[in-house]
Amino acid sequence: MFQSFENKSTPQFGKARVDALRATFDALEIDGFLVPRADEYQGEYVPLSAERLAWLTGFTGSAGIVLVTRSQAIVFVDGRYTTQLTMQVDQSVFTGGDLVNAPPAKWLADNAPNGFRLGIDPWLHTGAELKRFEKALSDKAGSVVLLAANPLDPLWEDRPAEPLEPISIQPDHVTGISAQAKIATIAEIVSSKKANAVLMTDPSSIAWTFNIRGNDVPHTPHPLARAIIYADGKADLFLDERKVGAEAQAYLAALVTLLPPSEIEARLHAISSAAGRILTDVDVTPVALTLSITQAGGEVIEAVDPVKLPRACKNEAELSGSAAAHIQDGAAMVEYLAWLDAQTPGSITEIQAVKVLEAARVRVGQATQNPLKDVSFDSISGAGENAAIMHYRVTTDSDRALNDGEMFLIDSGAQYVNGTTDITRTVAIGTVPEEQKRFFTLVLKGMIAISAARFPKGTRGCDLDPLARIALWKAGADYGHGTGHGVGSYLSVHEGPQRISRVSQQEILPGMILSNEPGYYRPGAFGIRIENLIFVREADAIEGGDQPMLSFETLTWCPIDRRLVVVSLLTEEELEWLNAYHATVREKIMPLITDADVQKWLIAATDALTR
Amino acid sequence: MFQSFENKSTPQFGKARVDALRATFDALEIDGFLVPRADEYQGEYVPLSAERLAWLTGFTGSAGIVLVTRSQAIVFVDGRYTTQLTMQVDQSVFTGGDLVNAPPAKWLADNAPNGFRLGIDPWLHTGAELKRFEKALSDKAGSVVLLAANPLDPLWEDRPAEPLEPISIQPDHVTGISAQAKIATIAEIVSSKKANAVLMTDPSSIAWTFNIRGNDVPHTPHPLARAIIYADGKADLFLDERKVGAEAQAYLAALVTLLPPSEIEARLHAISSAAGRILTDVDVTPVALTLSITQAGGEVIEAVDPVKLPRACKNEAELSGSAAAHIQDGAAMVEYLAWLDAQTPGSITEIQAVKVLEAARVRVGQATQNPLKDVSFDSISGAGENAAIMHYRVTTDSDRALNDGEMFLIDSGAQYVNGTTDITRTVAIGTVPEEQKRFFTLVLKGMIAISAARFPKGTRGCDLDPLARIALWKAGADYGHGTGHGVGSYLSVHEGPQRISRVSQQEILPGMILSNEPGYYRPGAFGIRIENLIFVREADAIEGGDQPMLSFETLTWCPIDRRLVVVSLLTEEELEWLNAYHATVREKIMPLITDADVQKWLIAATDALTR
Repeated sequence: MFQSFENKSTPQFGKARVDALRATFDALEIDGFLVPRADEYQGEYVPLSAERLAWLTGFTGSAGIVLVTRSQAIVFVDGRYTTQLTMQVDQSVFTGGDLVNAPPAKWLADNAPNGFRLGIDPWLHTGAELKRFEKALSDKAGSVVLLAANPLDPLWEDRPAEPLEPISIQPDHVTGISAQAKIATIAEIVSSKKANAVLMTDPSSIAWTFNIRGNDVPHTPHPLARAIIYADGKADLFLDERKVGAEAQAYLAALVTLLPPSEIEARLHAISSAAGRILTDVDVTPVALTLSITQAGGEVIEAVDPVKLPRACKNEAELSGSAAAHIQDGAAMVEYLAWLDAQTPGSITEIQAVKVLEAARVRVGQATQNPLKDVSFDSISGAGENAAIMHYRVTTDSDRALNDGEMFLIDSGAQYVNGTTDITRTVAIGTVPEEQKRFFTLVLKGMIAISAARFPKGTRGCDLDPLARIALWKAGADYGHGTGHGVGSYLSVHEGPQRISRVSQQEILPGMILSNEPGYYRPGAFGIRIENLIFVREADAIEGGDQPMLSFETLTWCPIDRRLVVVSLLTEEELEWLNAYHATVREKIMPLITDADVQKWLIAATDALTR
Repeated sequence: MFQSFENKSTPQFGKARVDALRATFDALEIDGFLVPRADEYQGEYVPLSAERLAWLTGFTGSAGIVLVTRSQAIVFVDGRYTTQLTMQVDQSVFTGGDLVNAPPAKWLADNAPNGFRLGIDPWLHTGAELKRFEKALSDKAGSVVLLAANPLDPLWEDRPAEPLEPISIQPDHVTGISAQAKIATIAEIVSSKKANAVLMTDPSSIAWTFNIRGNDVPHTPHPLARAIIYADGKADLFLDERKVGAEAQAYLAALVTLLPPSEIEARLHAISSAAGRILTDVDVTPVALTLSITQAGGEVIEAVDPVKLPRACKNEAELSGSAAAHIQDGAAMVEYLAWLDAQTPGSITEIQAVKVLEAARVRVGQATQNPLKDVSFDSISGAGENAAIMHYRVTTDSDRALNDGEMFLIDSGAQYVNGTTDITRTVAIGTVPEEQKRFFTLVLKGMIAISAARFPKGTRGCDLDPLARIALWKAGADYGHGTGHGVGSYLSVHEGPQRISRVSQQEILPGMILSNEPGYYRPGAFGIRIENLIFVREADAIEGGDQPMLSFETLTWCPIDRRLVVVSLLTEEELEWLNAYHATVREKIMPLITDADVQKWLIAATDALTR
């Protein structure tokens, strides 16, 4: 299993650990210390060795930051984690803060006493964050103290070792572009900006650029590594050589100078002391590294990570790899849904459901000789009212049966060498009330609206988002999350900059892979989400039109539960879309299905709906 | 007539006038001078006495700015005016510039020689503009010279006198809130910001606050005036007393201190020299006035015009006034369209069509004892390919017949004491090709999408805009303008901050009046626009919904040409909307129609469509 269902929270140690942390303040000459969920690589998933927030507080959510002062310890989380926080931390030690509306910088501006000295670990915060903290304290003659070492680490006795998982090489037929060519393009960008080098600190950018993958953190197959690429096309890769086997050794030797991670400061120092100009994305680069540049006399040129857009706009090889991965993943989903349908309502629990799905992915991976490398995130598996919790993660504490008359929501994804998947289906367990079917159909209308959209060049994520909502809005409802996020190529399942969201000004460009996942959540009652991955392409010429348009092509092929569709609520166009979708699901998935019962199930599940 | 159709351009004087302007440069110690279309009040419509741009260049468009240097004279206009510009100016003197992508500030940054001294008239530019010019010249050791007087004015021999049209008082039953109450609210805002006063320079804000109207500029019934409102509730109104009759004199005496416009600098000086803090909207306030404050030691506190949002969010009295005005206006439109339908194709021209419509508005205004005060803008009246010119203004040069087999687009509006209207209808002259009907129906789908939308609190103009476009996008088409603009209450037909547009981050709030006007334009062939005014209100509770929604209510009642609707392209919901709309048109407008033929026409024009 690539996921576990234990509640690993250890709130009982909170008091002692916070006390021990505070005991370091005098020697460090600080009045408070920040512990973010982020690691030294600013990733969404962090290695066990960087789970400092969970170790200190007991809170195991995927986003949060704790501010420990001499008298207070405030854990800032967003709305999806407020309930979990109260269950996971010792409330005599910790209070909750609002990560969205009153994050630490705002809290400090409002509450810090005059002269407050805030300690931070400069490896765990970006330059952009540091600026916010400094601004917050500037009115109070306060200061930010960049600590030479993280004061938690010596206190953490059984701290896990840093990961040293072996890297693998992605073949050119999967990546579409060789690492040599990518490096050359980046070097050109560096030249064109009259810089000496670019500092790259996002591990997914490293993985994409050098066509390597790793296994240092759960669910995102990038190795923890950094790089410097020079204007002349040379490259330094800072990656522990214990992660590099013989084959990888030979591959990298032709491409880069391989250096220990600890060498990066010395290298930056060398460039900088010759008045070097270094491109850096200050939104993702740790303060420790930008300071290495400026303190040695170098110039930091703020620039977006040069790999961000090229990585987002997949080439033909990446897209066809993803298409193949999705068909394989669809076969696993179909096996799984057929099995689920055959179970007596009430006989299966949420955790069992996740296990069976993961096993189906493993089995199909073996059959297709394209093994499941990991899940792309911890599955969300919720029945009845649990499905209404948007980021629900089932544990042995919350596990419950999938009961008759309920909807069951399963949001999961996989990592294969040729692509990353992410799919949500909401299915009927027995006979579901009509009102829930009505909302299912409204969500489906939104999902079809995005799938079937055409739009001109220049359209941004925020322009598409309302199309997915209008059917719900008209019914007096909405959902509290974005409509879609970017997805990587055997990389992060949450990849920027592309999003379908009211706040996304990013233009939607050909090749981008996005999720399309409207939902509806009735707290305490039921939850619905329907999610396909889609990618952007030039639309076929439209007869009578006067300008080229972009459109989406679907990657995900898996039946949408026909029993939950109220056909009378669909327009002709929507019904046609759904029937065509199901016809394609049958055509693409059937060849991978060997079991006769599953074949029969697939035929029924993809039958055309009529009025 | 409130509009004329002459081409009043006088390009033949351009050379002599530019030469005369350049002859002043040495004495003024400048190397260039800017002449914007804007007047001293930054309005969309300007009095004849401020038509400096047209006088100097011959260009009569509603937006533009000319930069005259010692060697060049560049008229910066936006895309809709590039053709008109080449026809209206002497091209041996003037060249064209791009007002949108390379406006004067950018041009100066790219092209001004070192040490360039740019002269401006500080009454014709805002503080925000001045900053942009200064920034553009800062790298070149250049400077902006604020001239004590506009060098054009002494050269303009037959310059018209400044307007002195009488003001009128809007009764409280029309405005809903007394001027006393409005002033008190503004004074509270001033107090709450710890300021001494607010400087208000937008004539529409003055008109709204003091419940007065004027006739100084075409089509927008505000008097050219400014005001200062103090924290203690006192107010100075700077308005030429020759505009104030006996009744208005008495009304204003109880409300304000009436002062000559020229006194405003002295007043600002008095407040400022006592270290006064003055709220000002630097986006609309002339530099001359912000400088009066700062040079006398006062502090400018940048703030949005305090009247902007209250004016945009109409109260019940304003909304019911507007509803009544729209029914009256709808009756005029119906009389007009019935007449148009009775004419032989080819027998009427665009100008004749405008004249008959204006006459219908006058006639209905007399019958209802609510006279037409003005048109709210110059009508756009275009047949065939002329309708494809988005901001077409018919002149005697361009006038053409409405021919058989064409669509005719008429966009017009009226000013009544109780409301401002703006309506576009596109109608068939004879039998129109099916392809044009298809596009008409796609535009109609967009217009219905906005009309029928429900949306949660917090929705912005940019969130609604795509709903009006998606039907066209799917057909490979789009339109190059926003979907809707704000409209005032017997004030400007283009009122901010509300808009339905991809760039509008303004939240849509109850009471706002907006236009809803998607279109489609096939250059050289045909043009379509369908426009109703709508206002925002709390939606009726929606059964099964879980949150309150906002919705639009329609103000405009006038048939949409049924002959141009391809019913098979409409969804059931769209067809129901259209039939319900037409039923209401008949119900609301019929009581105002006395002519039996027009009654018969209205019945036919509002008959339900079936599949």
